[in-house]
Amino acid sequence: MDSIFKSIKLDKNIPIPLYYQFKKQVLALIENGMIQEGDMLPPENELCETLNVSRPTIRQALSELVTEGYLNRYKGKGTFVSNPKVEERFLSKLETFNQEMISKGLTPKTKVIKLEKLTGPHEANEKLGLPLDAPLIYLSRVRLADQSPLVYVETFLPYEPYLKLMEVDFTVNSLYQSLEELYHVRVNRVRREIEAINARRKEAELLQITKNKALILVRTIASSDDVPTPVEFSIARYRGDRNKFSVDILGYYCS
Amino acid sequence: MDSIFKSIKLDKNIPIPLYYQFKKQVLALIENGMIQEGDMLPPENELCETLNVSRPTIRQALSELVTEGYLNRYKGKGTFVSNPKVEERFLSKLETFNQEMISKGLTPKTKVIKLEKLTGPHEANEKLGLPLDAPLIYLSRVRLADQSPLVYVETFLPYEPYLKLMEVDFTVNSLYQSLEELYHVRVNRVRREIEAINARRKEAELLQITKNKALILVRTIASSDDVPTPVEFSIARYRGDRNKFSVDILGYYCS
Repeated sequence: MDSIFKSIKLDKNIPIPLYYQFKKQVLALIENGMIQEGDMLPPENELCETLNVSRPTIRQALSELVTEGYLNRYKGKGTFVSNPKVEERFLSKLETFNQEMISKGLTPKTKVIKLEKLTGPHEANEKLGLPLDAPLIYLSRVRLADQSPLVYVETFLPYEPYLKLMEVDFTVNSLYQSLEELYHVRVNRVRREIEAINARRKEAELLQITKNKALILVRTIASSDDVPTPVEFSIARYRGDRNKFSVDILGYYCS
Repeated sequence: MDSIFKSIKLDKNIPIPLYYQFKKQVLALIENGMIQEGDMLPPENELCETLNVSRPTIRQALSELVTEGYLNRYKGKGTFVSNPKVEERFLSKLETFNQEMISKGLTPKTKVIKLEKLTGPHEANEKLGLPLDAPLIYLSRVRLADQSPLVYVETFLPYEPYLKLMEVDFTVNSLYQSLEELYHVRVNRVRREIEAINARRKEAELLQITKNKALILVRTIASSDDVPTPVEFSIARYRGDRNKFSVDILGYYCS
């Protein structure tokens, strides 16, 4: 840990305050995963020595990072990296992205990357219970909270039954609400599969992260009691550094 | 995609069958994440040309990878990378690791890395509702299925109330069953938080993967109706390339 902090270089000859240079570089260590949640920072006096700056310089930077939620300070224990992630309930509750962000005081935004008719990929047809050559609606979106990208979602739906979705502006409209309004189909059963993968170039670009950063990959099959076959199959890639999901489980395990 | 396959080098001057060289290198591409689930392989004739080998050579390698579950072949569509991951229900059901693996036909095994008394980290004390200086039991384990590491779990419990656990051999005994047998405490409420992170050196070594590979990180707080404060806090790091979790959600979203 200490050695990581020795990598910080402060330059007294540029017109940027030293505390600010230090703060930005600590932030970069957090954002690059060089230091992670729960890691303890070296004591302030040690940082002063290592970096050859005064105590108030160190203190101001750390205080701001505490205020901004990147660090936690525990009296008599030290300063620790915290977890400024958006906590989502979407493994336990059916909510639209917009609803969930708003309930957290965040401003949701959606960028539509593509909305088109497509045949394949086989996986989507299979999950939707359709012949492999049946045409699909393909919708891909990047969803943001407070201007920062959280997730890249690719969605597949049967083409013929939900044709009218091709005319919807998904920048402002929710998919589930559109299905209900246009077709009286209300999604009420969802199966999700969760994995972790390293970001490939395209996904990294869309999510504004570097290649290979960890992503939470979620596959969803959504169904409705209103129709006999699945309504939607989607693959969502969540930035690992910006999201966490929580779930409560009740019941006795069997011994 | 094609360019990735050009990186494959087959050597006709060594006593290893060409098909087997090819198979191992495709497997390495999958295991390194260079090609991922859903990716389509180039057509067989293209692979023959690129690698300058016969069609039966290519075909034998791909057939074996299909049989072993690494690839799927769809008639008239092509050959695709599949997902040979262990699917777990542990986001929706309380089960011990051993129970879940056995129910999947896998042989579970546990390596105990450490079992010791410890003070800190602050996060564990906080999650367990204990003063920051209260001593804890620290148990770290690597859990394997069919000899291959799936997850590295660090577990924290209050020290005084569960002292007798220090004598348990967790190579063969389950934590939850030990709590029940020794203390009549039966875990029946669990809160889990799920994130994705890149593996750091130590975790990568324990899980036998390379640094920076994506991991699913799961924090658990386990409670029991038998006692007023949480029983267990754990941090589990699952290999992203070997695990996936599924969860079913019922209910209407609110529009």
